[in-house]
Amino acid sequence: MTERLYLYDTTLRDGQQTQGVQFSTSEKKQIAQALDDLGVDYIEGGWPGANPTDSAFFDEAPDTRATLTAFGMTKRAGRSAANDDVLAAVMNAGTKSVCLVGKSHDYHVTTALGISLEENLDNIAQSVTHIVAQGREALFDAEHFFDGYKANPGYALAACRAALEAGARWVVLCDTNGGTLPHEVHRIVSEVIAAGLPGDHLGIHTHNDTENAVGCSLAAVDAGVRQIQGTLNGLGERCGNANLTTLIPTLLLKEPYASTYETGVPQGALARLTTVSRMLDEILNRVPQKQAAYVGASAFAHKAGLHASAILKDPSTYEHIEPAVVGNSRIIPMSNQAGQSNLRRRLAEAGIEVEKGDPALGRILERVKERETEGYSYDTAQASFELLARDELGQMPQFFEVKRYKVTVERRKNKYDRMVSLSEAVVVVKVDGEKLLSVSESLDETGSDRGPVNALAKALRKDLGRYSKVLDDMRLVDFKVRITQGGTEAVTRVIIDSEDGKGRRWSTVGVSPNILDASFDALLDAMNWKLLRDAAEVVDAV
Amino acid sequence: MTERLYLYDTTLRDGQQTQGVQFSTSEKKQIAQALDDLGVDYIEGGWPGANPTDSAFFDEAPDTRATLTAFGMTKRAGRSAANDDVLAAVMNAGTKSVCLVGKSHDYHVTTALGISLEENLDNIAQSVTHIVAQGREALFDAEHFFDGYKANPGYALAACRAALEAGARWVVLCDTNGGTLPHEVHRIVSEVIAAGLPGDHLGIHTHNDTENAVGCSLAAVDAGVRQIQGTLNGLGERCGNANLTTLIPTLLLKEPYASTYETGVPQGALARLTTVSRMLDEILNRVPQKQAAYVGASAFAHKAGLHASAILKDPSTYEHIEPAVVGNSRIIPMSNQAGQSNLRRRLAEAGIEVEKGDPALGRILERVKERETEGYSYDTAQASFELLARDELGQMPQFFEVKRYKVTVERRKNKYDRMVSLSEAVVVVKVDGEKLLSVSESLDETGSDRGPVNALAKALRKDLGRYSKVLDDMRLVDFKVRITQGGTEAVTRVIIDSEDGKGRRWSTVGVSPNILDASFDALLDAMNWKLLRDAAEVVDAV
Repeated sequence: MTERLYLYDTTLRDGQQTQGVQFSTSEKKQIAQALDDLGVDYIEGGWPGANPTDSAFFDEAPDTRATLTAFGMTKRAGRSAANDDVLAAVMNAGTKSVCLVGKSHDYHVTTALGISLEENLDNIAQSVTHIVAQGREALFDAEHFFDGYKANPGYALAACRAALEAGARWVVLCDTNGGTLPHEVHRIVSEVIAAGLPGDHLGIHTHNDTENAVGCSLAAVDAGVRQIQGTLNGLGERCGNANLTTLIPTLLLKEPYASTYETGVPQGALARLTTVSRMLDEILNRVPQKQAAYVGASAFAHKAGLHASAILKDPSTYEHIEPAVVGNSRIIPMSNQAGQSNLRRRLAEAGIEVEKGDPALGRILERVKERETEGYSYDTAQASFELLARDELGQMPQFFEVKRYKVTVERRKNKYDRMVSLSEAVVVVKVDGEKLLSVSESLDETGSDRGPVNALAKALRKDLGRYSKVLDDMRLVDFKVRITQGGTEAVTRVIIDSEDGKGRRWSTVGVSPNILDASFDALLDAMNWKLLRDAAEVVDAV
Repeated sequence: MTERLYLYDTTLRDGQQTQGVQFSTSEKKQIAQALDDLGVDYIEGGWPGANPTDSAFFDEAPDTRATLTAFGMTKRAGRSAANDDVLAAVMNAGTKSVCLVGKSHDYHVTTALGISLEENLDNIAQSVTHIVAQGREALFDAEHFFDGYKANPGYALAACRAALEAGARWVVLCDTNGGTLPHEVHRIVSEVIAAGLPGDHLGIHTHNDTENAVGCSLAAVDAGVRQIQGTLNGLGERCGNANLTTLIPTLLLKEPYASTYETGVPQGALARLTTVSRMLDEILNRVPQKQAAYVGASAFAHKAGLHASAILKDPSTYEHIEPAVVGNSRIIPMSNQAGQSNLRRRLAEAGIEVEKGDPALGRILERVKERETEGYSYDTAQASFELLARDELGQMPQFFEVKRYKVTVERRKNKYDRMVSLSEAVVVVKVDGEKLLSVSESLDETGSDRGPVNALAKALRKDLGRYSKVLDDMRLVDFKVRITQGGTEAVTRVIIDSEDGKGRRWSTVGVSPNILDASFDALLDAMNWKLLRDAAEVVDAV
């Protein structure tokens, strides 16, 4: 017999407290939809009245299976709940459920609010009563609960009881400052339940200030709470909130959780987890964290030579779960620690089958090693690795040849006496025996200079004969530059991440003492990889 | 009475398994020095013989207070420990202490190694005996210990006992695949100790695949182990290792750890934690994680309005520790209160005294904030910060004015049908009312192309009238490029480190969507700073 465990998402509210994060209304709607598909039980949409985007989001609230929840704070002292304008704005969002934060730490009541302990209990009770009287589901976020409990357990419990007795469906125990460790959370939650507060009415809300937000959430569930609050990708104030992207697969795949609890996450949703995580990064225009648990690009990357060879025999030897279960995939990167078995595996993943003992394997490894000495790195640039291997195996068609290029970068005063810059690139390629000359400048639609690499990329793609349209849906998503040691001289290494309309993402590398030349090489590889994937019919015609 | 808890760092070994990470020998030496200053007990330097950089590091090993440790694996079956060449290479590094990984999971013994369970125990015992016989301290990393214990507790314990009985100082319980949760770690370690293995000879080695590496390490200490293995910034295979940057402050500042255990971390070292963490990111050319626990730039950023106002009354209301304790600082958006005293300290460091309450302080802060929104960063670029402040204070002379520049980059086939590249830069400056035009190309003494930034730097310095000779002894020592967020568009941030004949070293920053433009700005700042320092007499004449 399984017990129901509820997931409460606060990406749109506490997640928006992340430094540098501000969602637009349409982004909020897109995220709410993804959360709903993922199967969370509650979606906290924001604080209506406190923030114009939050108010607008509730006005245009999407129709979700998950319970949309408005956030606010308990009524202030000296007025009734019905007459508190801040609370009224929250109620006016018209959500099925309302979550109010309030004080449970005596010090904060007297210092921050400057009211009596009794008044605060009254504010909690009256606010919750007001929500319930309007036919809504009420949640009470007990702010600073753990610090408050350590200072004055009786008062912290009294605050929670005031909410429960007034009809709150949930009292959420918040570790607002994020300093409580898992063993303390376990002990305190156990004591709270022993004091008579029912676990199936308790939630947990943690922060990652000691890297224990996930562990504290699990400890609270172990001790008896039945609701977990968190955010996608662990967004949130300071170091972030408990990461639902990590908690969801842990609860669904790991014991004792998998067989003890039931969540609202539907069959198959877990396989979309990596996509949802990357979508959020896309909205935030952030580079996804490679080392993120479960969904990071490196989460199933096996660099150590010993690991890589065992993985070939049985993936479970060095993987705690099957990557596909969370929509992720295995990576065996190339590096100077890798051996032939690792190499064959990497090639197989790229669709290249090479027999064990094939002398080409030795040649490929040799060439990778040479290139790494020059400053190349194939750990992340797997598309460039594939091209190198195919070339060594005689499986790399020459789609086009670059005869020359020329880039000009100028900065001068314009007629308004302001400094402006402009780049211009000329590229000459040969396709099917025909010489094609293209020119592009670096200005974008708004007239801003996007620089010489941009101009070069545009010119290179402008006319590649019959290959041009294959490259139409390709775009640069990231561009990394580092100065590294190649031989005896410092050289520039450029890594370019590209993406296409099918959602594929690939990385290529270029190395040169000349930064434009290094960029150009990485661009060429990126285009060749895309052509290799999508231009099979064109290739056959060559 | 406190108990001794040992910290074992594996940044240079397991940390190097991070996808995309490959330290040079000199970087390894720099990191080892920082670890030693931080007070870890052991520094695992790498696997001598398996990797040329690791071998080179041990050859030039720095003299550390921490015990430098070489890593390897237990001897293979069918030969004696003394005749195992892999083990011999590890021993030849000559370290005081040697750590060998070996199997403790029966499935891995029979499947991955393909030997009998008894042979494996024999390999462990003989390898450890060999290390001890040579007068070294022996550590045994029990690979897959937790998965192995769940499958066959008797065998997992037997593997550990084989090492201990042969004289190993430590047996390290490794959660190699990173899938074990904190409550399991606590239960299993408790059972291991109850089975007679002494906790003060046990270590813990965890990975972050469920975001619980820190929590699992703490759970193991709670259950009785006395050594923790981890890495700086949580580097490591897949999702990374246990993060020592988080564990160290947690153990030193949080109860029960703070009053129960003693570590080797000296008084005052904690205040350098943020600097050490950023230094590692600098070496890796990574953007530091803003939300990192304790050391992240956002770790003490208070965005929520309610929080920010309470913080002004009492910082402990929304902070779990005082940020300065770990060398970090508080960020309160829209509050210049904390900002101004920081600013005055920084100005004083640059030799600029400004009275408290001077309105220029507010203007400087405002301008720094504006520039940071555009993508600038003054954390490391202290010279650019000084120029900005002097400009705002009316203390910045205009040595010269750049009217325009133009850079051409070409790649084409030369007469031998080889692709060659060449850059050329033209710069027009105005000095003392005179217009000076200079041109330089990018070829160095050996005829190799050093790229457009090099050509630009040479042209800019070529003729600056009476200032030219002041810049003679200046040279570029490092050049870092990052793509960052400026407003709504991705822009390029270039940081240039310069050096002069007096051994001074300074950093400047430039930002633009155009990489050459960003480089040009950083170059200009670098030259202006040098002129400011060395051209006093020339300035007076202006």
